[in-house]
Amino acid sequence: MKKINKVVIAGGTHGNELTGVYLAKKWMKDKEVLQRRTVDTDVIFVNPKATDIMKRYVDQDLNRSFLLKDLSNESLDNHEQKLARVLSKKIGPKGERNQNFDFVIDLHGTTSNMGVTLILDNQDPFTHALAGHLQKINPMTRIFVDADATEDAPFITSILPRGIVVEVGPIAQGVVDAHIFLETEKLVYQMLDFINEYNLGNYISNKKELDVYKKIKSIDYPRSDDGDITAMIHPALQGKDYSKLKNGEPIFLDFNGNEILYQDEEDVYPLFINEVSYYEKGIAMVLTEKMEIKI
Amino acid sequence: MKKINKVVIAGGTHGNELTGVYLAKKWMKDKEVLQRRTVDTDVIFVNPKATDIMKRYVDQDLNRSFLLKDLSNESLDNHEQKLARVLSKKIGPKGERNQNFDFVIDLHGTTSNMGVTLILDNQDPFTHALAGHLQKINPMTRIFVDADATEDAPFITSILPRGIVVEVGPIAQGVVDAHIFLETEKLVYQMLDFINEYNLGNYISNKKELDVYKKIKSIDYPRSDDGDITAMIHPALQGKDYSKLKNGEPIFLDFNGNEILYQDEEDVYPLFINEVSYYEKGIAMVLTEKMEIKI
Repeated sequence: MKKINKVVIAGGTHGNELTGVYLAKKWMKDKEVLQRRTVDTDVIFVNPKATDIMKRYVDQDLNRSFLLKDLSNESLDNHEQKLARVLSKKIGPKGERNQNFDFVIDLHGTTSNMGVTLILDNQDPFTHALAGHLQKINPMTRIFVDADATEDAPFITSILPRGIVVEVGPIAQGVVDAHIFLETEKLVYQMLDFINEYNLGNYISNKKELDVYKKIKSIDYPRSDDGDITAMIHPALQGKDYSKLKNGEPIFLDFNGNEILYQDEEDVYPLFINEVSYYEKGIAMVLTEKMEIKI
Repeated sequence: MKKINKVVIAGGTHGNELTGVYLAKKWMKDKEVLQRRTVDTDVIFVNPKATDIMKRYVDQDLNRSFLLKDLSNESLDNHEQKLARVLSKKIGPKGERNQNFDFVIDLHGTTSNMGVTLILDNQDPFTHALAGHLQKINPMTRIFVDADATEDAPFITSILPRGIVVEVGPIAQGVVDAHIFLETEKLVYQMLDFINEYNLGNYISNKKELDVYKKIKSIDYPRSDDGDITAMIHPALQGKDYSKLKNGEPIFLDFNGNEILYQDEEDVYPLFINEVSYYEKGIAMVLTEKMEIKI
């Protein structure tokens, strides 16, 4: 396999997720800490205009703006549509054979109680090996496989064939939390160390499986005709990301105190429970199945 | 003392603090649950325009817009300045002898780990009795006295001589958290019950003191020349609202891992640690002294 010599870190892809914003600002002043013998790493503070107004985005979710058909459509000209084209050229370009980087790490925060979560958008063996290594040195590292992701995904990580999303929470938008900052920083250094060892041929693993949570589907909040939510995540489920949800257990509580029970497939594990930016996407949580994948 | 027969509840004074927004919406549909024998209660969803854009405010912080000199200045015409005049007329008017309500309860959320906090902006004996009662039935109820507040404060509660701010956290802006929703709801019902008993002459207390945290001053984050923060709340202090901060203990951690120690007055208790909306106000935390006040 081609070595991973050029890595790019994206911080602040969502303007109000400040862990990535301040890690990017830190590393832009001091790129030395990111360099490894065989790995040259660059960092991008992705959407400063969104950070200025302390919003996820200015016009539309940047991290849903990287479909090839959108990148090639010059008539799409709002802030994030234009920014996506700039970033694709800088990091990729997406879809081209010769690209500027070999691997992208995209840093995010979530209001859900998801701890350290890695999101894999692809089926790349190297990325699986990396995730397996991180899970080995920190067994609390969770891996989410978004089954919807295809080769042409709308995410910034889709620019390159290889990349990973880091999602650490719970953290409110607009704040820096030192625990989460330090956890994310450490994780990035562990990734770069691994990439270097891998390039040097020092990576040997007898790990054949990866424990992952694979998306089944997402569930929306109960809503009124005008689209407003009519219930909240049940207090017994709030913060219980990655715990098994059983048939008949309460899932929502309406504002009058009535419980709404989960009555669907067995053995599901909800993630992104009560993630703030998913209210507008119609997602109260993402249901997953726990499984092993061969690596 | 004059009876408290007309109470008004303000929800969503800050548009993205959703506990108050959804409690207001709930109660607007069902005001019956708020009525008591001697208490007629109304509820206002304060700033729907700010909620629509999921921001604290549209143009300026509404809850700093109620100074008498601003309310009487018709040339001030941004969204919150105009809204403040409308609310003053509806609830008060502020400064007039005959007012439409006797007591205002203003509902807020905070990203700080402050649990259930009552904020007193005034020196009113009735409000002190109410706070003492709530502290008695739930000893974890904290009371913050903002020493800066004068008779003419800029807060919505300043419209009336009597009022209280309810601040429950930690909660991210833009989310509804059932634990915090239910806690806040219960607290409002306890307040209304107390007001009714007080009106009926059934309130007898041998409580002579109130345990409060009184503001000394606020502290800002370390910042660069361009105003950006250069450090975050130290992980050992994050979430430690209402715990004693001692001289020499770490207070901030800069992005390169250097600790900044607290070196100032002894025996202080920080509140509003890492409150998201205070970054722009230059407040990393509010230092208080713990004291008893006579009631």
